[in-house]
Amino acid sequence: MLKSIGHEFMVQTRYENMEQKDPESIVAQPSLETAYDEKNNIIDLPMPEEIPPITIDFMALVELRSSVRDYQNVPISLLELSYLLWCTQGVKQILGNQATLRTVPSAGARHAFETYLLIHNVEGIKPGLYRFLALEHKLMEVNLAEHISTEITKACLGQKFIAKSAVTFLWAAQASRMKWRYGERGYRYLHLDAGHVCQNLYLSAQVVGCGACAVAAFDDEHLNAVIGLDGEEEFIIYVAALGKR
Amino acid sequence: MLKSIGHEFMVQTRYENMEQKDPESIVAQPSLETAYDEKNNIIDLPMPEEIPPITIDFMALVELRSSVRDYQNVPISLLELSYLLWCTQGVKQILGNQATLRTVPSAGARHAFETYLLIHNVEGIKPGLYRFLALEHKLMEVNLAEHISTEITKACLGQKFIAKSAVTFLWAAQASRMKWRYGERGYRYLHLDAGHVCQNLYLSAQVVGCGACAVAAFDDEHLNAVIGLDGEEEFIIYVAALGKR
Repeated sequence: MLKSIGHEFMVQTRYENMEQKDPESIVAQPSLETAYDEKNNIIDLPMPEEIPPITIDFMALVELRSSVRDYQNVPISLLELSYLLWCTQGVKQILGNQATLRTVPSAGARHAFETYLLIHNVEGIKPGLYRFLALEHKLMEVNLAEHISTEITKACLGQKFIAKSAVTFLWAAQASRMKWRYGERGYRYLHLDAGHVCQNLYLSAQVVGCGACAVAAFDDEHLNAVIGLDGEEEFIIYVAALGKR
Repeated sequence: MLKSIGHEFMVQTRYENMEQKDPESIVAQPSLETAYDEKNNIIDLPMPEEIPPITIDFMALVELRSSVRDYQNVPISLLELSYLLWCTQGVKQILGNQATLRTVPSAGARHAFETYLLIHNVEGIKPGLYRFLALEHKLMEVNLAEHISTEITKACLGQKFIAKSAVTFLWAAQASRMKWRYGERGYRYLHLDAGHVCQNLYLSAQVVGCGACAVAAFDDEHLNAVIGLDGEEEFIIYVAALGKR
């Protein structure tokens, strides 16, 4: 094992150490959204334009944000969930097959995430694992098995507030979408981008009377296996639990 | 060279691969702020409580955010700079020698950054390189040499909007502050945390009539050398240019 894999990673992802792209190795750009089975149950979400404006003092919002691990046992509405999804991954514009512009910034507009949701307490939605289809602004059922919440909580090292959340966001990095443009340095950008997304979740949560808590302490292999990700091309990069405060 | 240093980094920073801490190797917690020479010129900033509230529609703020690379050639005020620094790294509470609570979340409240500022056009401040002293909410002169702006722009691969910014934020990771608690996995968290900070800069910039553009494409060694960082214990992790839009 390297003395410091972290430092080694930083050194090897310097610009001068990045491999030159061999023209023969250049593959087609990965699609903007990871493929899914259209036979899955797909649920409409209220569109962002249906969400009434909520006015706040920005600095107070920033100052009052804290990591909230205690949630009231009350549901969040589908409109509130839609608000949170829009603020974290909302697609404002699709530029052909090239890129999307979203409500968060991303290195080179790569937007290399898919958002999974562990839903416990959202009005009108059965508990289970879902995926947000950002391009369509819809929800897709992934796994409604009863054990899914227990497994995800366990994979997050047993942090119990996850099991008590109304919904837990799990952001899955799609490595090739970022590496296609940035190579190995893209692993830095995936993490930077996940931070942007999570910060918008913290702030938008507060706007709709919720609290959130980011989680980066998880058993990668276990968590990826439960969600159904291979752990190399697709892997959970960040998690945040959320509920009414 | 490893086939994929990024993937290797992700594998080696799994929980089960993290070294057990040898009790003899446990060192004292690094201080909450990196030491500085108190003989340097230190400049008062308006305190956050002097900053009047600015009320906005949160979703419009999120939707209107974009990466802005064209800046008006007009100064930002010291009050605006203070607002931006408070929203990105403001220290709300100091918990003894243990931790700080800030306006952004950080893994385990480690807050392992120091903020450097390349100032071009801030009212009443000479152009040059400064450091934000977060615990004191003050600015410290670091280097007023004329070439500093050219050098930083060059190190950022010649991206000219940096030289035209009113101010460019450069966040320096202080690795040991994070590794002290999280070991090598902390390199993930440093990047996630930098994303939180930058997202708050994007949003707060817009609140005060500015635009920002994040920069992660830079020559690490050159940039660290210009700022005066060793590149291993301290290194620039993320950069953002900003000016009036």
